[in-house]
Amino acid sequence: MASPPAFLTSLYPPPPFPNAHRPHVTLTFAQSLDAKIAGPGGRQVALSGRESMVMTHWMRSMHDAILVGVGTALNDDPQLNTRHLPPHPGVKYPAPRPVILDAYARLPPTCKLLRNYAAGTGAQPIVLCTGHDSERAGALRRAGALVWEVRPDARDRAVSLEAALSLLKSEGIASVMVEGGARVISSFLRAGVVDTLVVTVAPTLLGGDAVGYGADVLGSQVPEMEHVATEVVGRDVVVAVKCRNAK
Amino acid sequence: MASPPAFLTSLYPPPPFPNAHRPHVTLTFAQSLDAKIAGPGGRQVALSGRESMVMTHWMRSMHDAILVGVGTALNDDPQLNTRHLPPHPGVKYPAPRPVILDAYARLPPTCKLLRNYAAGTGAQPIVLCTGHDSERAGALRRAGALVWEVRPDARDRAVSLEAALSLLKSEGIASVMVEGGARVISSFLRAGVVDTLVVTVAPTLLGGDAVGYGADVLGSQVPEMEHVATEVVGRDVVVAVKCRNAK
Repeated sequence: MASPPAFLTSLYPPPPFPNAHRPHVTLTFAQSLDAKIAGPGGRQVALSGRESMVMTHWMRSMHDAILVGVGTALNDDPQLNTRHLPPHPGVKYPAPRPVILDAYARLPPTCKLLRNYAAGTGAQPIVLCTGHDSERAGALRRAGALVWEVRPDARDRAVSLEAALSLLKSEGIASVMVEGGARVISSFLRAGVVDTLVVTVAPTLLGGDAVGYGADVLGSQVPEMEHVATEVVGRDVVVAVKCRNAK
Repeated sequence: MASPPAFLTSLYPPPPFPNAHRPHVTLTFAQSLDAKIAGPGGRQVALSGRESMVMTHWMRSMHDAILVGVGTALNDDPQLNTRHLPPHPGVKYPAPRPVILDAYARLPPTCKLLRNYAAGTGAQPIVLCTGHDSERAGALRRAGALVWEVRPDARDRAVSLEAALSLLKSEGIASVMVEGGARVISSFLRAGVVDTLVVTVAPTLLGGDAVGYGADVLGSQVPEMEHVATEVVGRDVVVAVKCRNAK
């Protein structure tokens, strides 16, 4: 199979996406039954099985960009590519452009994202910072990143999501897949800028010391949800919902 | 259909259950994606759809007893019966005996459980208390309840789960379905006395102000899990896991 599973293609209307002012946003992550996405202290945990990881890589291939917070980039040193898709002669899967929300330009210039780009095996990463550290920003530019300044959020001095999404849209990015971590998940839900939510639930509990996205950070500001589809994928289950009244 | 769906019958070995010292324990509850089981302040929320509620009533019909905490009994005034199973001429579904963990005998004598029993439409409820309030216990007995004293837990003065399960077993109850609420769910998981966990996940988020079972109360003491089966039921999904090394 060299095209995404029907479960995913059915989630999206054919482009162009309806939002004029920002890209179409899909928020996606893997969690335990007790809504934890990482172990104690943010330690990476292999939650999803092989089959649902392939599903995630298919979803990546359907988006212009893939966005994570710098916490995830520092913790996991992810590649954010589509390497788990089945190889087919003559088929080159589209790879989304990595975008890192990184107010203080803390991404290491030696990270896999920049090494893959230098080696010709990854798209050029975009680092969105608030312009506080020109030295680190310069080092990232020299390592190959596009470093763009975005105004900070008035509340928490992180990168303003509205400004970031508006900038990405103006640069031709029509769809963004947001992969985490906990803080980014909560921020996107709280800001009401999620169109589609796709959650992989692994059949396990991680316990109260693990890192969740919902308990303290989400508050009561959750978007209204409309169920779209659920599919059992290996031992996991993937649940897709649309958020009503996304901004 | 007048017998439980294959998803449920496949979960259980044919009786007798292997535990000699306590009943077989199935812990089950419905939750949102963000692991919340009730709204802010414990307010009851209709999380699961019609189809998964029927699944839950099938599961009830397969157990000797159904256990809840007094918090749930006070909040929801539940009936804990099998009224949503499909009517069939000549078929009377087995109804589990209600058991309420109620250290201080706070269950109202006017609750639906006791009214149903008095009307001949429900099994006789068992109230497990720690013997602190003989007046309230007497009123419950007069309303028809079996009120049994169990030693309190040394840590939190609630009914000792070990003592409660041992007593139920000695009274001939071979299997118990535990339905909540949050405190009871956490206690059973923490005590390591859960054999099977069956979680219905509804495709929605309730937000940080809602009541969860995992965040603060569960700690890091979660049992090791082995996935058994997952089934999409209406818009919900039902996930069944076995707990390894249950005590």
